[in-house]
Amino acid sequence: MKVYLIRHGIAAERGAYADDEQRPLIDQGREKTIKVAERLLAAKLKFDLILSSPLVRANQTAQILQKQGLAKDIQSFAPLKPDGEIEQWLEWLQKWQAKHRNGQLALVGHQPDLGNWAEMLIWGSIKRQITVKKAGVIGVELPSIGTPISRSTLFLLTSPKWLIYS
Amino acid sequence: MKVYLIRHGIAAERGAYADDEQRPLIDQGREKTIKVAERLLAAKLKFDLILSSPLVRANQTAQILQKQGLAKDIQSFAPLKPDGEIEQWLEWLQKWQAKHRNGQLALVGHQPDLGNWAEMLIWGSIKRQITVKKAGVIGVELPSIGTPISRSTLFLLTSPKWLIYS
Repeated sequence: MKVYLIRHGIAAERGAYADDEQRPLIDQGREKTIKVAERLLAAKLKFDLILSSPLVRANQTAQILQKQGLAKDIQSFAPLKPDGEIEQWLEWLQKWQAKHRNGQLALVGHQPDLGNWAEMLIWGSIKRQITVKKAGVIGVELPSIGTPISRSTLFLLTSPKWLIYS
Repeated sequence: MKVYLIRHGIAAERGAYADDEQRPLIDQGREKTIKVAERLLAAKLKFDLILSSPLVRANQTAQILQKQGLAKDIQSFAPLKPDGEIEQWLEWLQKWQAKHRNGQLALVGHQPDLGNWAEMLIWGSIKRQITVKKAGVIGVELPSIGTPISRSTLFLLTSPKWLIYS
């Protein structure tokens, strides 16, 4: 099973909205995210499901991925909010994996959480040494049985610069 | 300073040559490696230096990178041979870094060494959890002073599938 951790696109500046959760993607963020989605589709990537942080900028990113044809379904998933911890969604993940043996899951969220979660899956501890840009993607492959913590492999870490031809 | 760990392209099958060190790239490997090099150049990547494992398949890969314009110089570097350990070239790296503060270095070599070295730079121990495909690239950013071991960040891990439009 493969999990793709996808960071939301470029959003309005921090502080531009009274409620940070409402910050939307700006035009440039939307355009880059659309191009990233097209590129992922061209590489024949499909997700069985997209889970998204409920924040506006993440939800808009997830909708772009869906609209470009990368998945049929999106679910809003509170544990993907900023400062979420992997323990909050690990049990859900393992149940989902039991029903989707070779499943492909997209999680749309925020930094540094996405990098931290990848580190937990790969090495079992957080050092904040994985950086992922906006609309960037981290690809992690989980073992088929047992806990994925410190037993998963990293096969992809990329960003719009490397995905989109300018 | 950034280090790009680049795996050699697709080579003749293991056992096809009496001396494994002599296995060359096959046509498909050469073609994919040229496309990867073109893509890296299009993203404005340039190396101050390419260090290559002395094995034929790595040296041919390094020559393709050079020929496409990614660097002026290649040096053959024995510590990049299969089963090399990072301790064998860490001192060299730190001396080079002292002269090239914002340098960009390419190291062309083999798996699982490249993934292991990246893990040492990022987390300080080897779990063999980073996979990189043939003609794939791992990008690691080193701290500006002090040992890079367990203090570097990972910003790129990609492969021909994600770099080349088919």
